[in-house]
Amino acid sequence: MRVTASPDTGYTGAHSPRLKAARRLTKRAFRQRERAFLAEGPQAVAEAFHCGTRVIDLFVTVPARSRHHDLITAMADAGIPVHVVSGEVMGELAQTVTPQGLLAVCGFVDVPLSEITTPASGLVALLANVRDPGNAGTVLRTADAAGAHAVVFADASVDPYNGKCVRSSAGSLFHLPVVAGARLEDAVAALRDVGLRIVAADGRAGRSLDDPEVQARLAGPTAWIFGNEAWGLPPELVALADESVAVPIYGRAESLNLAAAAAVCLYTSARAQRVRSEGEMGTWVEGQDGA
Amino acid sequence: MRVTASPDTGYTGAHSPRLKAARRLTKRAFRQRERAFLAEGPQAVAEAFHCGTRVIDLFVTVPARSRHHDLITAMADAGIPVHVVSGEVMGELAQTVTPQGLLAVCGFVDVPLSEITTPASGLVALLANVRDPGNAGTVLRTADAAGAHAVVFADASVDPYNGKCVRSSAGSLFHLPVVAGARLEDAVAALRDVGLRIVAADGRAGRSLDDPEVQARLAGPTAWIFGNEAWGLPPELVALADESVAVPIYGRAESLNLAAAAAVCLYTSARAQRVRSEGEMGTWVEGQDGA
Repeated sequence: MRVTASPDTGYTGAHSPRLKAARRLTKRAFRQRERAFLAEGPQAVAEAFHCGTRVIDLFVTVPARSRHHDLITAMADAGIPVHVVSGEVMGELAQTVTPQGLLAVCGFVDVPLSEITTPASGLVALLANVRDPGNAGTVLRTADAAGAHAVVFADASVDPYNGKCVRSSAGSLFHLPVVAGARLEDAVAALRDVGLRIVAADGRAGRSLDDPEVQARLAGPTAWIFGNEAWGLPPELVALADESVAVPIYGRAESLNLAAAAAVCLYTSARAQRVRSEGEMGTWVEGQDGA
Repeated sequence: MRVTASPDTGYTGAHSPRLKAARRLTKRAFRQRERAFLAEGPQAVAEAFHCGTRVIDLFVTVPARSRHHDLITAMADAGIPVHVVSGEVMGELAQTVTPQGLLAVCGFVDVPLSEITTPASGLVALLANVRDPGNAGTVLRTADAAGAHAVVFADASVDPYNGKCVRSSAGSLFHLPVVAGARLEDAVAALRDVGLRIVAADGRAGRSLDDPEVQARLAGPTAWIFGNEAWGLPPELVALADESVAVPIYGRAESLNLAAAAAVCLYTSARAQRVRSEGEMGTWVEGQDGA
């Protein structure tokens, strides 16, 4: 295993150029310039490596080096430079309360809009001005679980490479195509061109997601628009959609939070696309369960 | 409006007994002793007041006093002591980065298990060792939105009166009966006795939530068990249920996060209970939409 460490301390020096370069990537402007970001924790690091993401550097603490020996060895064998750092330096890079001792510098993974606007895209999530990185990462993870083909971070949405977004995506950032920085209007137009219906998730919509007619329409290729966690979707963005739909509120809550609403919408789509609308309650299509 | 404030500073003194008493409620042991907790922000405060919760004291900052004049006046008129505090004191009480200037000391709202174990309870969420207050509060909010009749914080689950749990419930703590500190086994037995089927949400289960047979069974009264955010439900808790069901993973994500999985399960139940299984895709039952 090729490991960079000072002969004095056993650690990569705090002034090492690689460490300095990594530290800068906690800031968006530097991420944009270098087209690289930080992925923290064994899950994210393993997913980055196994999904073929370009890993530029790997930073590990001494305890993590023994705990994740096989993964680190495999990465070192693949030619990825491994740097041993102190817990303190790791904490600074990881920006979490309890860093897990493993952090990779990865090349950007996002793709251009043209790559996802194909007739093969049956289910797409469009984030319109989603600002909270934890929410955005959770929706990305849920979209992946629901079998979505792509997620678009549109308009003023958070940077998908924000540390908290990467973390809450739980590896999904590396699983499915992500488009960063697209205009919502462009994404909608391009997806509609290849046959997707555009549906806005809007708590104020008159149509309920539980209306069977809505669900029947969701059996076709669909792109969902999800709005900001605090103020939802303004009318001019709702107007871009072919239909707007509300997750019904059956109790006394004023609304659902964004990630919960997106989970209900995306799974309703996934189910509608898998159940043929024949006979009672549809016919379960075998072998699409994923279980 | 009756307002307690020092004639010198315009603020309730930092050593005021009411403020000291409130400050102690940031700790669980004191909450248990006093059977009182802190609800922060205009939404939580308004919900507490309007839902008939006993509000013992109301703390407000000067900017919040003008911003929420009507609510504060109504609460003062109802005999609730209003104390004006500095932004600094509010920050200490609210334990948030951006306190909203309004905080109520409320009496506990939880109810005994016997109160929710009636045949009228058609949909109940049981939290089994859910430790993260943000997750627990979000599930409570989602359960409320899905029209659940009660939420049980069972076994080693987080305290529902934890500040972050109250905040992420977005008022739902005041909307539906909450049972705190029950044993899961007791809750399961009592709910089964009144006719509810017990379903465990378990990512490792062989049965998919999207199986129409599972959905047909969900049309009846159901209590869902949701497990810990990191390790899920251990086999001995899964064994308490009549059936265990997985939210299917159609993509490459390893799992869903707890709040997203609970949202999909609870809304699947809500839908199954509302759609009569007649004819194609069931018949939409009018007037249950809530829209």
